[in-house]
Amino acid sequence: MQGRHFLQIPGPSPVPDRILRAMAMPVIDHRSAEFAELGKAVLEGSKTVFKTTQPVVIYPSSGTGAWEAAIVNTLSPGDTVLMAETGHFATLWRQIAVKFGIEVEFIPGDWRRGADPAAIGERLAADKAHRIKAVMVVHNETSTGATSRVAAIRQAIDDAGHPALFMVDTISSLASVDYRHDEWRVDVTVSGSQKGLMLPPGLGFNAVSEKALAASRSNSMPRSYWDWAEMLKINANGFFPYTPATNLLYGLKEAIVMLQEEGLEEVFARHQRLAAACRAAVKAWGLEVLCEEPSEQSPVLTGVLMPDGHDADRFRKIALENYNISLGSGLGKVAGKVFRIGHLGECNALTLLGALSGVEMALADAGVPHRAGGVAAAMASLQGNGGPKVAAVA
Amino acid sequence: MQGRHFLQIPGPSPVPDRILRAMAMPVIDHRSAEFAELGKAVLEGSKTVFKTTQPVVIYPSSGTGAWEAAIVNTLSPGDTVLMAETGHFATLWRQIAVKFGIEVEFIPGDWRRGADPAAIGERLAADKAHRIKAVMVVHNETSTGATSRVAAIRQAIDDAGHPALFMVDTISSLASVDYRHDEWRVDVTVSGSQKGLMLPPGLGFNAVSEKALAASRSNSMPRSYWDWAEMLKINANGFFPYTPATNLLYGLKEAIVMLQEEGLEEVFARHQRLAAACRAAVKAWGLEVLCEEPSEQSPVLTGVLMPDGHDADRFRKIALENYNISLGSGLGKVAGKVFRIGHLGECNALTLLGALSGVEMALADAGVPHRAGGVAAAMASLQGNGGPKVAAVA
Amino acid sequence: MQGRHFLQIPGPSPVPDRILRAMAMPVIDHRSAEFAELGKAVLEGSKTVFKTTQPVVIYPSSGTGAWEAAIVNTLSPGDTVLMAETGHFATLWRQIAVKFGIEVEFIPGDWRRGADPAAIGERLAADKAHRIKAVMVVHNETSTGATSRVAAIRQAIDDAGHPALFMVDTISSLASVDYRHDEWRVDVTVSGSQKGLMLPPGLGFNAVSEKALAASRSNSMPRSYWDWAEMLKINANGFFPYTPATNLLYGLKEAIVMLQEEGLEEVFARHQRLAAACRAAVKAWGLEVLCEEPSEQSPVLTGVLMPDGHDADRFRKIALENYNISLGSGLGKVAGKVFRIGHLGECNALTLLGALSGVEMALADAGVPHRAGGVAAAMASLQGNGGPKVAAVA
Amino acid sequence: MQGRHFLQIPGPSPVPDRILRAMAMPVIDHRSAEFAELGKAVLEGSKTVFKTTQPVVIYPSSGTGAWEAAIVNTLSPGDTVLMAETGHFATLWRQIAVKFGIEVEFIPGDWRRGADPAAIGERLAADKAHRIKAVMVVHNETSTGATSRVAAIRQAIDDAGHPALFMVDTISSLASVDYRHDEWRVDVTVSGSQKGLMLPPGLGFNAVSEKALAASRSNSMPRSYWDWAEMLKINANGFFPYTPATNLLYGLKEAIVMLQEEGLEEVFARHQRLAAACRAAVKAWGLEVLCEEPSEQSPVLTGVLMPDGHDADRFRKIALENYNISLGSGLGKVAGKVFRIGHLGECNALTLLGALSGVEMALADAGVPHRAGGVAAAMASLQGNGGPKVAAVA
Repeated sequence: MQGRHFLQIPGPSPVPDRILRAMAMPVIDHRSAEFAELGKAVLEGSKTVFKTTQPVVIYPSSGTGAWEAAIVNTLSPGDTVLMAETGHFATLWRQIAVKFGIEVEFIPGDWRRGADPAAIGERLAADKAHRIKAVMVVHNETSTGATSRVAAIRQAIDDAGHPALFMVDTISSLASVDYRHDEWRVDVTVSGSQKGLMLPPGLGFNAVSEKALAASRSNSMPRSYWDWAEMLKINANGFFPYTPATNLLYGLKEAIVMLQEEGLEEVFARHQRLAAACRAAVKAWGLEVLCEEPSEQSPVLTGVLMPDGHDADRFRKIALENYNISLGSGLGKVAGKVFRIGHLGECNALTLLGALSGVEMALADAGVPHRAGGVAAAMASLQGNGGPKVAAVA
Repeated sequence: MQGRHFLQIPGPSPVPDRILRAMAMPVIDHRSAEFAELGKAVLEGSKTVFKTTQPVVIYPSSGTGAWEAAIVNTLSPGDTVLMAETGHFATLWRQIAVKFGIEVEFIPGDWRRGADPAAIGERLAADKAHRIKAVMVVHNETSTGATSRVAAIRQAIDDAGHPALFMVDTISSLASVDYRHDEWRVDVTVSGSQKGLMLPPGLGFNAVSEKALAASRSNSMPRSYWDWAEMLKINANGFFPYTPATNLLYGLKEAIVMLQEEGLEEVFARHQRLAAACRAAVKAWGLEVLCEEPSEQSPVLTGVLMPDGHDADRFRKIALENYNISLGSGLGKVAGKVFRIGHLGECNALTLLGALSGVEMALADAGVPHRAGGVAAAMASLQGNGGPKVAAVA
Repeated sequence: MQGRHFLQIPGPSPVPDRILRAMAMPVIDHRSAEFAELGKAVLEGSKTVFKTTQPVVIYPSSGTGAWEAAIVNTLSPGDTVLMAETGHFATLWRQIAVKFGIEVEFIPGDWRRGADPAAIGERLAADKAHRIKAVMVVHNETSTGATSRVAAIRQAIDDAGHPALFMVDTISSLASVDYRHDEWRVDVTVSGSQKGLMLPPGLGFNAVSEKALAASRSNSMPRSYWDWAEMLKINANGFFPYTPATNLLYGLKEAIVMLQEEGLEEVFARHQRLAAACRAAVKAWGLEVLCEEPSEQSPVLTGVLMPDGHDADRFRKIALENYNISLGSGLGKVAGKVFRIGHLGECNALTLLGALSGVEMALADAGVPHRAGGVAAAMASLQGNGGPKVAAVA
Repeated sequence: MQGRHFLQIPGPSPVPDRILRAMAMPVIDHRSAEFAELGKAVLEGSKTVFKTTQPVVIYPSSGTGAWEAAIVNTLSPGDTVLMAETGHFATLWRQIAVKFGIEVEFIPGDWRRGADPAAIGERLAADKAHRIKAVMVVHNETSTGATSRVAAIRQAIDDAGHPALFMVDTISSLASVDYRHDEWRVDVTVSGSQKGLMLPPGLGFNAVSEKALAASRSNSMPRSYWDWAEMLKINANGFFPYTPATNLLYGLKEAIVMLQEEGLEEVFARHQRLAAACRAAVKAWGLEVLCEEPSEQSPVLTGVLMPDGHDADRFRKIALENYNISLGSGLGKVAGKVFRIGHLGECNALTLLGALSGVEMALADAGVPHRAGGVAAAMASLQGNGGPKVAAVA
């Protein structure tokens, strides 16, 4: 297919040229003074992205690995945790916990909302014996486009006076949606490189609190690769206990610079603007956004429900073949019923509008019942919603 | 400014990643056997793009240099040539000729059409003494978005029975608009690297006929850098008489492969589809396309007239600052009155629609009187005009 | 420091430009048909490098992760395994096993040889009860420069009639030293990307036998990230159960092509030639190669013993500051006493000779007692030892 | 051929990775404010490299083009100039002048020295009528490895009280050999991108004095592409009169930063050290350096005379095929008799020593009579000649 591909899945997000160039630097000795400078730069810089002054651990791994790391460092076989079924990825994280012998209380959900702080609070309040060792939620459900209100969940835990650890998956929200590891007293924040950080996949992250570290000193889960203790000891000098993914770290350093140049708050605002425009398009088409609760609709991606009788994957295939655009598929129990539009990372207004044009034309090509005017609605949204940095030029 | 820049000027066109990677290969000895293979590949491959079996000369230069090369290899001081004022670039080429002591008969034009075959034919018919040594026209006027009908001009020359050389500037049309050096018996075709060939600027081209070579053996203009004779002698073995721009040649080799993969005829058809969509947008906005003659409207760029009292450069500045899109400025006598939308090279449907969205929003931001609906019109055009390669998927 | 850095550590090895360019391609949807082609290419291509027709599992991880994967997929807490203390990395692998509750019988070694097949055979013969579940050896000890004779160890296991699994770490030997997963009936071959495969760090590998797969179906170690079963199920279609490190896979695909172009056997022969030249230099300097047994001296790196009273790390620092060359440090119990010269991956004769020149000059700068003539000896070795591909040109 | 190629021709020199990455940035609008910043940076930065406060003109061209530019901007047909036959490139420059109708007095030379200041002074002194309009010399004869003493020639011109313009070709010396456009009152300094500037070929330079500009206002040579007047007018705002080679300008900007980081004087000293080491090797081999005059031996390259009866090109072919190293051929009247070793640009000690190892082994392979020990002599030279930046580490 000719010309630039529009990669509008909710991650991996397109890697900016600037990061690709940074990653093309020659590999260096990972035990050298030069490496230590790089190591320190990314270990410290990552903290600013998680809004924490506590340690951030970086693994050569996928985000899935970072999920596992959070579990094996803090929990012991037989422990009970509380999770919320926000969608496919919450379900996967639960499966990992189960594999490690964790009892998971899974608050059921219909995949159309974030985790419910009230339900979590209720369950914790009922747990007088404090059997629940951790509350584990997904900040941004990549499979649905619903964000969980982490601050409210923190409040619910506090209100219940419950000592459970608080673990949050920010794989698809970090550096795209406002997130505050320290302020919200999250104990383990899990993340990955290939979404808001605009890197290729290959790095997993754990931001860890003092409380989490304390738990890691007494839990009984065997571990080595994921072990925080050895990692943090060696990280102190800018090094890693085993060979790090040096070229991805070059990219991470550049990504952090780019986020700082734009300003994290502006990055978040931009994602909000793009998401609002995307939802305006979906509404104009007469289609339904999967996430029902407006305050929980994701700044990162928009899940769209297909009209009954229309297959989302057939539609996605037509979009790809006719317009060279990749859209995200429905996963798990919404497979075939939902497609997802990613608008994260280096996405900007014109890229999104090009993408929405592709969706609008493909809806017609595929014979999906809809009204035209989605792109126009998105333009109106961007124009009236702070899209322009400059209203006019003198 | 954040995210991918939309470079929608009519050249340089965005360089595909694939070509940038090819250009990043290590430089090699330009006198080695390995180089000779590269040299032969690009010298032969370029012929397919010009549709010629005759020699193509490649200079380390801008397209301007290739204009000069055409002149100094074939004409002598005091010679008379016939040119047509199609716009700014025809005017510049004329100025170069004048600097070399050429008398230029310049058929006046209003910059809203291509060169007029009838006017050229008349003038040649009147030149019984055959004082006119060459007819020199610009195939695609980058400053206006008007193409000249080269085949018709060839016919006019033939009908006049005139022996003038025929020289055509294809700097902004080659590899974007159908062009046939041999079939149209063009004597010198001038081109450059940074438009349809999707390369950075830095290479100039002359495709030369036997008749042009014969002229070059008897004309009296001093020359060295641009001299065809030395170049062709050394090119025969895949080498160049002076150090070539090796890394741009790497890119040229890749560009030729990309054009062959898509197929030249499909490349031309794609440019036609995109141009039609762009004009549909302009019409829907209620604005005027600079080129008045539908059959001469350019597949490469669309020049748009600003409403009276509105400055095109102010509008372009707003578009750049608000939406990170570069549009072409009006040049020469249409400066400030015209802006130009490039849709050439690796441009595809969604890139164009993103760009047109930027134009439509910027028109509003700038307070330029227009109707909304341009992007919608462009989508309709692309959808009904062969835009999709595949109408539907089973 | 000016000019090209000589990265002569025993890995990460310098990444060829060609691989860096491959890795700079845009990331794609890891659930797309285009990705499936990539996935199949690297999964199948990797088999040729391990010389196996059985599955190869690829993790986004360091080699350390692949060590852990071998353990958690096949063993159960309380199992006993037999390992040989060949050096620092054997010691680290043992520590990982211990962390997972494995009893390790560690045949002691003085770090100057590979694993002793006879000692392994004896120990297995004595294990009438077949308590030993696995024999785990390091093929090429990166910390010392000694290779273990894997075929001979296989023979010793067979001779003892022992059913233990056979697991081999080839992190620093794969694609540099002859290795035959199937022929030697290895059950799990562990490897990594950043040595003979010439990639940046970030990929771990397990090649697994039927017998290993059978063990993985009945062992009791909890696992998720490293689990073969899920991986192999999804790999069958060219996909991965979690987001793969796409850009490293681009590089892997290119690396496999490069190895095939040169031919694996010629790759091995080249490493042998370079290693012999390096040892000739060390001998000429009057220094001692750490590995005492000539038949076990590594084709990948040469460990060099410092004369008493001279600190290897001070010497390495001088070499780096004066000549812009990185040499490997002594690790673990030979720290400060040994430096290591890497000659692996894309290394060729002139690169090695440049590196040896740096070592020879730095020995003088550092006041290390030695004789000159190392580089001359290396040149003699390369000239007389098949260094040239072509003896002479007609 | 496997592994890193040693490109040891006297230009194009290997392009550092860092510059290749800079050149891979996306092309931008050459009429934008962003471009103007780039334009100003390279136009101003180039002055520091020429050691001038006067204008530097940058062409999309080879160095050959910059030769031509110097001629057509300052001379008129029929003018007489004085040149010195230092080698092949002086001869080529003369041929260009002749093609433009210039009378060239060519002081003969044997290609084993730089231009003779005394001979030039004599000839000028004899030219009472001041018929000679310009003295044109090559600073570093790339074909031989002899440098001309530009300051001494300036003195000779002054001593003769002659008003001739002084034009110097620094194509292969700029940024490698000390050069002072202003201090030496050179009127036109000609240069190119692919040697000391470490860029790919494709940029030509003219640094021009007030006197040269005055000459350009009254000479009668027709010109357009090379015309300084238009160039300087537009350069004032950071722009160019025709499309510049943007990506090469990205590289130039980075190259200037790299030269400043190392320090120009240290760059020159490094080239001197490497050249001395190379000559020490040649002497040790018992071969003869082409340049007879020690004070004129080039810091950039070393021309080596083959023993009688041995063909230099056969030797070079063996070196290339056996050791993957490119050496420069003999050109013009020393073809087949001379080979050239480049040691310029990003070359450093270990790269040179690797290269010399290749030469020494290839001499043996080719059966060229020589003594061993060249590399050893070069090491001794580098060790005793300020090679190390740091004598020792505490």
